[in-house]
Amino acid sequence: MPIYNAPLEDMRFILNDVFKVEDFWKSTEDLSFLDIATADAILEEMAKFSKNVLLPINRSGDEEGARIEDGQVYTPKGFKEAFKQYAEGGWMSLAGDPEYGGQGMPKMLTMMSEEMLMATNQSFTLYPNLTNGACLAINAYGSDEQKAMYLPRFYSGEWAGTMCLTEPHAGTDLGIIRTKAVPNDDGSYAISGTKIFITGGDHDLTDNIVHLVLAKTPDAPAGTRGISMFIVPKFMHDDEGNVGERNGAGPGSIEHKMGIKASATCVMNFDNAKGWLIGPENKGLNAMFVMMNYERLTMGLQGLGGSETAYQNAAAYALDRLQGRASSGVTSPEKEADPILHHPDVRRMLLNAKSHNEAARCFAVYVAKFLDTAKFSSDEAAVKEAHDRVALLTPVAKGFLTDMALDACIDSQQVFGGHGYVREWGMEQLVRDTRIAQIYEGTNGIQALDLVGRKIVKNGGAFLTPYLEEIKTFAGGMSAENAFMKDALLDAVSTIEDTTNQLMALVKDNIDEINASCVDYMHAFGLMSYAYMFAMMVEAAQEQSGDFYSAKPKLAEFFVKRRLPELKARAAMALAGADTLMDMSDEYFAQAL
Amino acid sequence: MPIYNAPLEDMRFILNDVFKVEDFWKSTEDLSFLDIATADAILEEMAKFSKNVLLPINRSGDEEGARIEDGQVYTPKGFKEAFKQYAEGGWMSLAGDPEYGGQGMPKMLTMMSEEMLMATNQSFTLYPNLTNGACLAINAYGSDEQKAMYLPRFYSGEWAGTMCLTEPHAGTDLGIIRTKAVPNDDGSYAISGTKIFITGGDHDLTDNIVHLVLAKTPDAPAGTRGISMFIVPKFMHDDEGNVGERNGAGPGSIEHKMGIKASATCVMNFDNAKGWLIGPENKGLNAMFVMMNYERLTMGLQGLGGSETAYQNAAAYALDRLQGRASSGVTSPEKEADPILHHPDVRRMLLNAKSHNEAARCFAVYVAKFLDTAKFSSDEAAVKEAHDRVALLTPVAKGFLTDMALDACIDSQQVFGGHGYVREWGMEQLVRDTRIAQIYEGTNGIQALDLVGRKIVKNGGAFLTPYLEEIKTFAGGMSAENAFMKDALLDAVSTIEDTTNQLMALVKDNIDEINASCVDYMHAFGLMSYAYMFAMMVEAAQEQSGDFYSAKPKLAEFFVKRRLPELKARAAMALAGADTLMDMSDEYFAQAL
Repeated sequence: MPIYNAPLEDMRFILNDVFKVEDFWKSTEDLSFLDIATADAILEEMAKFSKNVLLPINRSGDEEGARIEDGQVYTPKGFKEAFKQYAEGGWMSLAGDPEYGGQGMPKMLTMMSEEMLMATNQSFTLYPNLTNGACLAINAYGSDEQKAMYLPRFYSGEWAGTMCLTEPHAGTDLGIIRTKAVPNDDGSYAISGTKIFITGGDHDLTDNIVHLVLAKTPDAPAGTRGISMFIVPKFMHDDEGNVGERNGAGPGSIEHKMGIKASATCVMNFDNAKGWLIGPENKGLNAMFVMMNYERLTMGLQGLGGSETAYQNAAAYALDRLQGRASSGVTSPEKEADPILHHPDVRRMLLNAKSHNEAARCFAVYVAKFLDTAKFSSDEAAVKEAHDRVALLTPVAKGFLTDMALDACIDSQQVFGGHGYVREWGMEQLVRDTRIAQIYEGTNGIQALDLVGRKIVKNGGAFLTPYLEEIKTFAGGMSAENAFMKDALLDAVSTIEDTTNQLMALVKDNIDEINASCVDYMHAFGLMSYAYMFAMMVEAAQEQSGDFYSAKPKLAEFFVKRRLPELKARAAMALAGADTLMDMSDEYFAQAL
Repeated sequence: MPIYNAPLEDMRFILNDVFKVEDFWKSTEDLSFLDIATADAILEEMAKFSKNVLLPINRSGDEEGARIEDGQVYTPKGFKEAFKQYAEGGWMSLAGDPEYGGQGMPKMLTMMSEEMLMATNQSFTLYPNLTNGACLAINAYGSDEQKAMYLPRFYSGEWAGTMCLTEPHAGTDLGIIRTKAVPNDDGSYAISGTKIFITGGDHDLTDNIVHLVLAKTPDAPAGTRGISMFIVPKFMHDDEGNVGERNGAGPGSIEHKMGIKASATCVMNFDNAKGWLIGPENKGLNAMFVMMNYERLTMGLQGLGGSETAYQNAAAYALDRLQGRASSGVTSPEKEADPILHHPDVRRMLLNAKSHNEAARCFAVYVAKFLDTAKFSSDEAAVKEAHDRVALLTPVAKGFLTDMALDACIDSQQVFGGHGYVREWGMEQLVRDTRIAQIYEGTNGIQALDLVGRKIVKNGGAFLTPYLEEIKTFAGGMSAENAFMKDALLDAVSTIEDTTNQLMALVKDNIDEINASCVDYMHAFGLMSYAYMFAMMVEAAQEQSGDFYSAKPKLAEFFVKRRLPELKARAAMALAGADTLMDMSDEYFAQAL
């Protein structure tokens, strides 16, 4: 069974040394209740819970999977008990609105908890995660009555939530959904239609499940402007929240998937199910995006959780496994072979994973700080800046982090040789589970399109320019000892500036250039952002002493010399021109059929 | 269920137009019996067999898996019948030695058959594949009696073979194996030990299974110079091949794996099993490498088979799936959305896969031509050159092709969005199955080490230089219409030359530089080789007319502009220096434990 030890030292380093989080909290009224000691206690508790409760049921959950019987989904052995402990530990309410019984913790802290959850049990974590999403949507768009009814029950873990978007013919393209919502006389709606890929669409963890369903009212405009959101409970309930008869909403089947097998992915049938409008009619997508910006960072953390556990296990294996002799001389003469950690290529794979993990965690905190500023700050200018930065970086936090995470998982699996392919070791599950994070919540191609199209080209760089200026200013103030990092960072920024300018010019002539360039551009942009994170980390480490800190510039140098060269290659690919993609006919792709 | 249509037009293009295979066959005495029409008939038959017999049992085989009961392994439903058809169709003997009933077909042709087999059912294909390996080893090192006993029975499909190398503590490092072979009075040996990861170690497809087992005799020298190879049958047999009682060799258990689940991966227990030496004592690894050079190309073909099927299905899905509107204008106004094929990024993913498939197939034929020259030619200089080239390119054919293949499978899966993650569509199985090809038969890290260490640095470029000269000569003769390809190719060769020279200098000071650079170097080298393949393909296409041929330069241009930029990045990483890997202490990697 895989090991996991929460990287608390790294988490503290980023929160305290890199981002001086207590200063930020103390200067923000709604977060001033929080101090390092409290934050630390929360991290310590989650480190224990994730390791002791979730990790032990991760592989058994994968082997057993979720199952459906007579229209009811059952989670694997141990999940119900773990969820009970999770709820009783107060974890469901960690980020919740204090007005309704939540603890009001900032994302900078809850993201650390999310990383640990994802690191130990991705399937389990999706159940509370989807409820978190429903909380955000209801909190943002629900009436006072709706908030009072649902939020406390979500926070206590009595009830759970889902997000029902996708339909068989409508995934990325929600404008063409067909689920109908017909008004009833009592102010409710009759919801009918089929939704697919509904994570936690049904399960046995809670007394009730509340579905947030996108549907179209009878006279709704076509496309995305005619989508409304409805609250559709699994069991009807009265005004006191007493659960009654079953509503016409339930799972038809569950998907058999590559991974996250303990997470029930449901086909949901709505058959004149009773539902209530949440938020204004035809504005359902707005509510959805409130939730999504927050959740997309969580998907990045899913990747990070997977790759952190993958790295830890690969490092442990590389220390333990004896095979061959180190090329520069025997290192374990008393044994019949040396640890494979002493082979340079094994280290390369490990450091690939580790450099991603450290940069990704730092980047997630960086984005979380803007999320928290946007949510908690009373400084209008800061809130505006934070909103813009979140908008710019969210697709990167989801798309780039999860692409890098899969690579890290594959590299870590490779360290195990044949043992990495065998289920018993758990490495292949990490690859299978983590793979989904590149696909759902908007595929990574869609994230990249969002980045280049909506967040950069559409506003002429209004979000991008301040980010690049901030990086240049930071680089300008770096210490002489970190000159290698400063030079690499400035070179990266300069490449992104040039590439962006050239790309904007190309787009003027051909709108296809946006989608043609976006994934490669996102990778170049992500690598530059990782370089910025390493720059911040080496500067913060500079002020401390000890092995932990003195290793930071070494990993940064690894990143600069062995990962960052990809940036220029990606930039070249991004500027390759859409013609290289669009010149082939449809028949060309139909050749094999 | 996934579709598959053998890419016969592409196969013919490469064989006939690019490599003028009939000229080669006619000029080689042992192959002069072969003509295009015969070759074509073989390809057509395999296209049918693989599609009609193997593809239908691929997913069911994955779902059911191989199983073990009372020391006997059973293959999934349909495998036994398929193997019978396979054997009756003469496929087992296709490449076999005519002296013992084989058909003596060259690798240039049998590799096409292997691609189709791997494309439709990787698990199934491993059973005959391991037998092929055993055939090669016995043919090269067996006595006349051993050849006469085993080869005809392998070729007919009555018996099967295995290769038993790995032990729990000894994978890459075979020098430390512990399996013992103690001489009996009758000239046989008593073999005792445990082998793991034995593909097809047991199954129900044949009447007998003949294991080729690496073991150490009592006074054998330590390390790889003390390893001998033994023939150990599952059932004892008399001189007429009549099968008798069970030998002390059998499966203890089978592994539960990420993929190739229908292929039984056995733990094999040898308990005073009766075995016979094959080849000279202590020279067992030589026999193993005879087999491996041939088989490593087959592993590259496993990757290609997986990525070809992945591409075909992704292309079909992209033509069919309607989602969103093309950014440059609606293309299917009569429908509610446009095919996702009209989104540039979807094409990018498809062309990533397709450019790999076409280049990989061409490269495999290129290598196979040298394998055939080495085996069949009577021209001593040509044979010598061919051996050198095979030695140089085999690790690339295995390591680079399978790395690229996994990327192609992942890109193709990504085209499906959420549907790619669902088992029903079969895309995730292609990812899981194809993943093993990067791991077994020597991990890709070991392939890269072989390339840089043994095949380039050790001989000071003696194998490399003629290859690069050949490429430069070819580029020099390219037509003006293909100037873009010529320039890109010459630039790639020049980068490889510079990188190799710099690397050799680095190695002089630090032997670790070989292993530190090798994977990135292999990728740079592989990309240059793909560029050479595209150069040959566009030149050959130039001489023909029609859509099929006029599309070749378009794909080549895609490759040059959107894949080849990675070459320089990889070259930079290869030259990053071993210090970036070796500077961290063991404790650094133990941090998380």
